[in-house]
Amino acid sequence: MQVRREVEELDPYVPGRSKEEIAQEFGVKKEDIIKLGSNENPWGPSPKVKEAIEEELKNINRYPESDVEALKKEFAKYSNVSPEQIIVGGDGADELIDTLAKTFIEKGDEFIVPLPSYMYYEFLFKPYGAIPHYARWNLETNTLDLDSVLDAINEKTKMLFLCSPNNPTGALISQDEFRAILNKTSKSKGGVCDALVVIDEAYFEYSETTNVNLLDEYDNIFIIRTMSKVLGLAGMRIGYGISSKEIIEYMHRIKPVFSLTKLSYVAALTTMQDKEYIEESIKKGIESREYLYNEINKMKSVKVYKSYSNFMLIDIHDTGFTAAELTKEFMKRGMIVRDCTSFKGIDEYYIRISICTLEEDAKFIEAMKDILNE
Amino acid sequence: MQVRREVEELDPYVPGRSKEEIAQEFGVKKEDIIKLGSNENPWGPSPKVKEAIEEELKNINRYPESDVEALKKEFAKYSNVSPEQIIVGGDGADELIDTLAKTFIEKGDEFIVPLPSYMYYEFLFKPYGAIPHYARWNLETNTLDLDSVLDAINEKTKMLFLCSPNNPTGALISQDEFRAILNKTSKSKGGVCDALVVIDEAYFEYSETTNVNLLDEYDNIFIIRTMSKVLGLAGMRIGYGISSKEIIEYMHRIKPVFSLTKLSYVAALTTMQDKEYIEESIKKGIESREYLYNEINKMKSVKVYKSYSNFMLIDIHDTGFTAAELTKEFMKRGMIVRDCTSFKGIDEYYIRISICTLEEDAKFIEAMKDILNE
Repeated sequence: MQVRREVEELDPYVPGRSKEEIAQEFGVKKEDIIKLGSNENPWGPSPKVKEAIEEELKNINRYPESDVEALKKEFAKYSNVSPEQIIVGGDGADELIDTLAKTFIEKGDEFIVPLPSYMYYEFLFKPYGAIPHYARWNLETNTLDLDSVLDAINEKTKMLFLCSPNNPTGALISQDEFRAILNKTSKSKGGVCDALVVIDEAYFEYSETTNVNLLDEYDNIFIIRTMSKVLGLAGMRIGYGISSKEIIEYMHRIKPVFSLTKLSYVAALTTMQDKEYIEESIKKGIESREYLYNEINKMKSVKVYKSYSNFMLIDIHDTGFTAAELTKEFMKRGMIVRDCTSFKGIDEYYIRISICTLEEDAKFIEAMKDILNE
Repeated sequence: MQVRREVEELDPYVPGRSKEEIAQEFGVKKEDIIKLGSNENPWGPSPKVKEAIEEELKNINRYPESDVEALKKEFAKYSNVSPEQIIVGGDGADELIDTLAKTFIEKGDEFIVPLPSYMYYEFLFKPYGAIPHYARWNLETNTLDLDSVLDAINEKTKMLFLCSPNNPTGALISQDEFRAILNKTSKSKGGVCDALVVIDEAYFEYSETTNVNLLDEYDNIFIIRTMSKVLGLAGMRIGYGISSKEIIEYMHRIKPVFSLTKLSYVAALTTMQDKEYIEESIKKGIESREYLYNEINKMKSVKVYKSYSNFMLIDIHDTGFTAAELTKEFMKRGMIVRDCTSFKGIDEYYIRISICTLEEDAKFIEAMKDILNE
């Protein structure tokens, strides 16, 4: 059986290490492990979700309804758009990125990603025969290298992935920068191609800014959102996208019909109706981020990047550790941080940490001081 | 923004009608509606699943582990193969069908489906530019028209979808028939092409037969399984595939990594360990099927097809109703049956019903007699 060339060229899949493995290797208790690696909401889901799921348990032998209108309406209200501009993803935002490829990408089309950024865009797009064209993120100033993006745009460009706040650098892309990019990728605005500008707002709540207003000015925008971050449902795999009605209608034609589980649906609906939980999650998240930033900023051997998200990048060149070594030191102490070596566009001297409860934050700071002799 | 030609040619997506809509239109109570339309397990999930999910609720703010080894081992044991021969799908078996396309299909490749059969193969494969080549199911004898399949195989054939027991006809494909097809699609056995024979065993438990043994003889088989039928978890979207280690490894390279929700994972694991529940579900399912078959077989105006599954096809040519009209009559009485008009390869005079509890079965039979004056 001949597999496709694009698949043969991909690296074999290596599953991540489970909590069980880490607990066993480093002799720590599984339940004591502090997770700072995956940009989750450490306070758990809305308390109302538990009740909603328990109520729905009796129906999980039944297929989900393909109609998720009530949920679309909630996302639309939350995003200040109409429900026809919303598409819901059943494998978090990842399913929507895949659906974007399936809707628009022909073999040989180019997509642009400024590095470092979220690596999963590439993982999902390469199997479709799409060719990555890398632009740059300026790590000195922690801003997008706008010229590198504009220079990368050509008539073969079909899509651009711009993550704001950017993962893993935590900084925002300004609306002036977006407009410059949107103008060059829209023929009706004098651009060189018609390409879709994908704005990944997975972390937008922590920055208290959004780019939804740009949808009124441009028809080549797709905004990615997720319930895996501030909304506390990473384990339930729910994402949504916002775009023009036309693009959303095309994407619905080929999107998996039943991919959202029955329990994910009620969890999502209940969370979106719990405004108090959402506000509280944002407030506590920002408080935790600022605490971590200020504490790490006092340390002499590292440089921490200002973040508008629920994580922050740390430059560890001067610590004497590689990211792999430092990550291992934290694991010995029962803490999982993100070794950023696998991110393209940065070297092996960066880690990323995400917010925890203030109590866990304090333990982490203490461990970091201990490891770095700060 | 130019979408791909394959997407433009697809029909716009029309969501199915929700229970709410049906309840409202026909003035029946939502909770009284009897579902005979979706081939589900009417007795609900394993009672142990409830507990397992409640225990896991505190972790749904965390991403799923990408490592699902424990679940692979359960599926392997259940299927009498090794865990390296198993791939787990997070949107039921549908995600695996999509992954098959992504692994093997180049634009212009052909795939074969004998009609009538499950329509979702085509829905998932067409966006990849794959071309359907239809073979036939013989409705007179309710057997596969083997010659029509063998005749359809040519050097462009890349995949075949053979559902056994077949949806919606309920009959089995014999191992002699599979061998004839496998020989013609395997160059090492003197065939005209190397194509993957996908055997959809979504309903295999109800037939108490499997084709797993053929994996020892042929390397071009992929067997599809699901937890949506006898295993009672349609709402949790879990499927698995069985094939050679080599094919499974390639598919893992591009399969979505986190698509199985945390609650789906514990529900799946708990169900596979509850052998008593599985045995009981099969036993009750077959009992319900035989009851329905025998009762409908007594009616003069319809012809019911012998089934090895949890559903059965009913020929209603002589009733004076079209499937749409008859379906509406059942809806008025609070019952959802499947109008088969949208299945290619049969006309508008077939409905499909799936098993219910014996009490619901009796109500259905009563309603059917009433509608048909039997």
